[in-house]
Amino acid sequence: MALDEFSLIRQFFTASMPANVLGPGDDAARVPMTLGAQLVVTKDLLIEGQHFFPNVTPLSLGYKSLAVNLSDLAAMGATPVGCLLGLGLPKADPVWLQGFSEGFLSLSQAAQCPLVGGDTVRAQDLAIISVTALGALPSGQTGLLRSGAQVGDDIWVSGYLGAAHIALLGLQGDDRISAQRLEQTRHALEKPQPRLALGQGLLNLAHSAIDISDGFVQDLGHVLTASVCGATIDYAAMPIHPALLDIPLALQQEAVLSGGDVFELCFTAPESNRAAVLALGKALNIQVTRVGAIEQTSGLRVLDQFAQPIKISYGGFDHFKDHEKR
Amino acid sequence: MALDEFSLIRQFFTASMPANVLGPGDDAARVPMTLGAQLVVTKDLLIEGQHFFPNVTPLSLGYKSLAVNLSDLAAMGATPVGCLLGLGLPKADPVWLQGFSEGFLSLSQAAQCPLVGGDTVRAQDLAIISVTALGALPSGQTGLLRSGAQVGDDIWVSGYLGAAHIALLGLQGDDRISAQRLEQTRHALEKPQPRLALGQGLLNLAHSAIDISDGFVQDLGHVLTASVCGATIDYAAMPIHPALLDIPLALQQEAVLSGGDVFELCFTAPESNRAAVLALGKALNIQVTRVGAIEQTSGLRVLDQFAQPIKISYGGFDHFKDHEKR
Repeated sequence: MALDEFSLIRQFFTASMPANVLGPGDDAARVPMTLGAQLVVTKDLLIEGQHFFPNVTPLSLGYKSLAVNLSDLAAMGATPVGCLLGLGLPKADPVWLQGFSEGFLSLSQAAQCPLVGGDTVRAQDLAIISVTALGALPSGQTGLLRSGAQVGDDIWVSGYLGAAHIALLGLQGDDRISAQRLEQTRHALEKPQPRLALGQGLLNLAHSAIDISDGFVQDLGHVLTASVCGATIDYAAMPIHPALLDIPLALQQEAVLSGGDVFELCFTAPESNRAAVLALGKALNIQVTRVGAIEQTSGLRVLDQFAQPIKISYGGFDHFKDHEKR
Repeated sequence: MALDEFSLIRQFFTASMPANVLGPGDDAARVPMTLGAQLVVTKDLLIEGQHFFPNVTPLSLGYKSLAVNLSDLAAMGATPVGCLLGLGLPKADPVWLQGFSEGFLSLSQAAQCPLVGGDTVRAQDLAIISVTALGALPSGQTGLLRSGAQVGDDIWVSGYLGAAHIALLGLQGDDRISAQRLEQTRHALEKPQPRLALGQGLLNLAHSAIDISDGFVQDLGHVLTASVCGATIDYAAMPIHPALLDIPLALQQEAVLSGGDVFELCFTAPESNRAAVLALGKALNIQVTRVGAIEQTSGLRVLDQFAQPIKISYGGFDHFKDHEKR
C-alpha cells in the first residue's frame, strides 16, 4: 500500500478530539480519566470470512465493529472514554473506507467515545478489524460482573430478542424467512444499540450482567457458571421481537433462546430493586423484562407456558466454536 | 479451530493478576488507575509476511509484539498498567504457542504490565497479532510529546544505535554481514528493552521524546515536523553499537541513521537539564548521549567529523511505506 493511500485512509478517520484528549499522531494517545479511577477495557479481532462476510455493507461493518465492543463496556456498567481501531486492508477502496468510517465514527460520536488512535496496515487477502474500547468506572465500583448473581435474584433482559438471528438466516438464503420478514428484522442485526446508559444505571441496582452476543441461553450460562448457581426461565415472559410472533414456534424459540448478535443486556438484580429497575428502563425508554429467577440448583431450565421444559437448541449462530474471548 | 484448541491456547496465556485487576473471563477487563488520572494507550496490528516473517522464533515474536508497544508508552513517559492481546492463528501449534506466550509473558511480568484480556480467533493463512498497551500518566502531566521540542534543546539518544539493522541484514542473507557480526547484533533486534524507567524519569526533564522504530533520522524528523523546528546532529557523537565500529562507513551510517527496530528513545531537553539527564541515565544504568541541538532553521543536518553534511540514506528497514500509525 503506497503512502498516498495511507494519507487517504487517514482522511477518513480524522475526527475532532474532545478537550484534553491527545488523539492520533504521537507515540500513543492520552485520555483523561475524569469519570473514575478505574479503567475498563475490551478488545475484539474480526477477520473477513470468519466474523463478517465480504458482502456486508461497510456502513454496517464499521458501526458494528465498534458497537460490539461498546456493548461489552455496557455490560460492565462502564462509561466509554475512547477507542482504537486497527485495520488490515488488502487495498484502499475509497467507497469502502467512506462507508466504514461513517458507520464507525457515527457511533463513536453518538456514544462520546472518540477514536484516539490505532493503525492501518496492508493485509494480503482478507480484511482484518481490531477494535479496542476504553471505559471508566467510578472508584470503588467493581462493575457488573458475571460472577455476581445471587440466589433469589430476578433475571432481566433489555429490548427484544430473536430478530438478529432471523435476519441472519434470511441473509444466508434460508427459505423460511420471507423478504418482508428480513426487512423487519435486519435493523436489529445491522444496528444494535449498545446499552451504555442502562449498564451505567444498573451499577447500583444489579448484581450481575452480560451482553447477549452468543445467544441468551449460552450467555446466561456464562453467568450461572461464574456465579455457581442455576436458573429457571419462563419462556412466555421473554421479550420476543414483534416480527417473530407469527413464525413457527421451533424457529422462534431457536431465535430467541439461541440466536446470537443481540447485544441486549441480560442482568440479575434482587427482588427489592424490581421497581427501581422498571423505573430506570422507563426513564431511558428501554424495555426491561423480568424473565426468570436465579436458583441454587445448578443448570438452566426454560419452561413453556405449561411449565414443561423446552429442549434448548444451540443451533443458532454460534461463533463460540471458533472464537474465544479472554 | 475446535473448542479444545482454545482451551489449550488459554492455558498458555493465563498469568496471575495483581490485586484489584479483573483479568480475562468477563465482558471486559478492569484495571485500577492508581498512578494517575490520565490513560495512555497505543495499539499495533502485525501481520505475518508483512511485519514479521514466518521463520522468526515465536519467543522473539511474543517478546517483541509487546516490546514495541511498551516502547511507545516509554516515549510518552507513561507507566504501564496492562495490555491486551488479540491473536489470529491458522492453527493451534503448542510449540509455537509455548514460545510466543513465554516471550510475551516474560516481558509482561518484567514490565509489571499484566495481560488483562484480548481474544483468539481463527485466521486463514497468516498469523495476526494485535497488541494494545495501557499506561498511566500523573495528573497534570501532558506526557512527552513529539511537538514539545524547543529551539536550543539538546538532542539525546539512549543506548546504542545500528545493531538491529545489521542483524536484520544478516538474517536476510546480506553477505556483507559475517556470522560473527550477526551473533553480536541479533540480541538488539530480538530483545529490545523498552525504556520505560527512562521515559518516566524524563517527564520533568525533557521537552519532547519519540522512540526510534523507523530509524533515527526519520523519527527525529517526526519530532522536527511536529515541533516546527530543525536540528543539526554531530555524527561523531552518535552512540554507535560497538559491533559496528569496524564495518564500512557507508553501511555503518546507514545502520545508525536509518536503521529501524531500535526502540531506544530520542528526546530533547533544555541545556539547563544536561546534568540531570546524565544523572538519570547513570541512576538507571542506561547510556544517554547528547548528539546535537534543536535549531530554528528547518530541516535536519547530520555533520561528519569535518563538519561536512552526510547524505542521508533512507534505505534501511522502512516499514513506513506500508504501515501508518495513527
